[in-house]
Amino acid sequence: MKKSPEKITLGLLQHPCGPDPEANFATVLTAARAAAADGAQVICTQELFRTEYFCQIENHDIFRLAEPIPGPTTEVFQALARELGVVVVASLFENRAPGLFHNTAAVIDADGTLLGTYRKMHIPDDPLYYEKFYFTPGDQGFRTWDTAFGRLGVLICWDQWFPEAARLTALAGAEVLLCPTAIGWHPSEKAAEGAAQHAAWQTIQRSHAVANGCYVAAINRVGHEVPAGGDGLEFWGQSFVAAPSGEVIAEAGNAQAETLLVEIDRAQVNEARTHWPFLRDRRIDAYDGLTERFLDA
Amino acid sequence: MKKSPEKITLGLLQHPCGPDPEANFATVLTAARAAAADGAQVICTQELFRTEYFCQIENHDIFRLAEPIPGPTTEVFQALARELGVVVVASLFENRAPGLFHNTAAVIDADGTLLGTYRKMHIPDDPLYYEKFYFTPGDQGFRTWDTAFGRLGVLICWDQWFPEAARLTALAGAEVLLCPTAIGWHPSEKAAEGAAQHAAWQTIQRSHAVANGCYVAAINRVGHEVPAGGDGLEFWGQSFVAAPSGEVIAEAGNAQAETLLVEIDRAQVNEARTHWPFLRDRRIDAYDGLTERFLDA
Repeated sequence: MKKSPEKITLGLLQHPCGPDPEANFATVLTAARAAAADGAQVICTQELFRTEYFCQIENHDIFRLAEPIPGPTTEVFQALARELGVVVVASLFENRAPGLFHNTAAVIDADGTLLGTYRKMHIPDDPLYYEKFYFTPGDQGFRTWDTAFGRLGVLICWDQWFPEAARLTALAGAEVLLCPTAIGWHPSEKAAEGAAQHAAWQTIQRSHAVANGCYVAAINRVGHEVPAGGDGLEFWGQSFVAAPSGEVIAEAGNAQAETLLVEIDRAQVNEARTHWPFLRDRRIDAYDGLTERFLDA
Repeated sequence: MKKSPEKITLGLLQHPCGPDPEANFATVLTAARAAAADGAQVICTQELFRTEYFCQIENHDIFRLAEPIPGPTTEVFQALARELGVVVVASLFENRAPGLFHNTAAVIDADGTLLGTYRKMHIPDDPLYYEKFYFTPGDQGFRTWDTAFGRLGVLICWDQWFPEAARLTALAGAEVLLCPTAIGWHPSEKAAEGAAQHAAWQTIQRSHAVANGCYVAAINRVGHEVPAGGDGLEFWGQSFVAAPSGEVIAEAGNAQAETLLVEIDRAQVNEARTHWPFLRDRRIDAYDGLTERFLDA
């Protein structure tokens, strides 16, 4: 394992997206440089930061937005990581092969090495979140990378709702779960359901921190995007970091671009796990049913 | 599956315990009758309601407090259930055989039938929670029962911290997870850590409701118990019910006996699971590692 400092500063880039991918990319590169100048050592983008959240519509033309990994965007980030000495986790629309696309995060070490990718394992399909049209579910499982600044795991948006995903990534050694996200309100539901929806989202991610004794960082976009007409989606931002205790130690607002700079203390992982020794007591002899769809047989 | 009404009223019995088990039992029987008179259909006790929380000390004399199941306490509850037409879930110190003890919940249907037992699967061992001395971990796995008032599962205290336990019980069909509990503050930690500890406890249980689209009901004792001298434990009560949305729909105070009467709507389970379709998208092909201790091989 690499020698990482005990205390590490995360830089989480929350922002609105416009229709021009290159403009969004420029926004992120500027924000990443500013974050690094302010001490960020692990920089993470929101989900699919280069584009508006195109999954609100099913349109074959959109596949042209995808790119290979390694590819043009990761090359720029590799150069940036090397120059600034920061780890970069970037959420991208991956074109793996003709007709084969993933919702993928690239993990780049502080020396510019592309360590690998995490391909979103759980793909949603809900009104205006038509991701099953675009993304093949990941085939690499749940992964972590030993970086210059801690052992990191990535989960992407819908993955956040599955305790199995967080557990497996923690069991693979993650000290921090980085969760690029694109979640928002249907404007017609916001008044009645909005608060409960946001609370559920924050609650389940805080629970991953508690259950696994690790940090969880969620990076979510802001902005009201209406690519398909109608009401569109109002992305709720509120990127946050939960400590291994489950406490929210930093949280962004819900309406504008904001970089969260959050110092974390890797020693808190061991502290939490010895004071709340859940890993000690898991009943792995009795968990076989977790690989079943339902236990109605 | 039995025909249960769509709406069911839970009666959750939170109370302090004194040194006399028969007096505690009388308290519970009185509270159970009052709850049933007020409309409760599923009555659930707090963890080990007959006694003070004896696991603060390791003392062989305490094993004499255990009883068989079926046994004297379940016989009384079976008669009560039959008389009042209520389901009873009772947390007991089970003497299964000489030298073999469990922390067990008995599940009794509204006709007085003892449907079975859930034996606590995850056993803690922490300062003043010396449960590994007393209780053999359960060997029956995670279970549910089809009662006159819904399909119920039981998790006991430390189990609550394991997403695997909630998931497996939900996959076995639970509409409601009933969680008898004995958790409190070390008085010396309360000022600095108390709020975060309670928040973590509520958060992870709310997360089980969210992840599984089911109701979660936690029933916790109150009272400052000092059986071993020293500071003892200040049980924090705050029994609550979380809806499948994760919202807390009822919550008791932290200092006195209180019966929570909470109407739940079984239709909300299907409502939550179709609007947040996590069961649809679990990656059961990729969860094998959950039966491993750690993925460091």
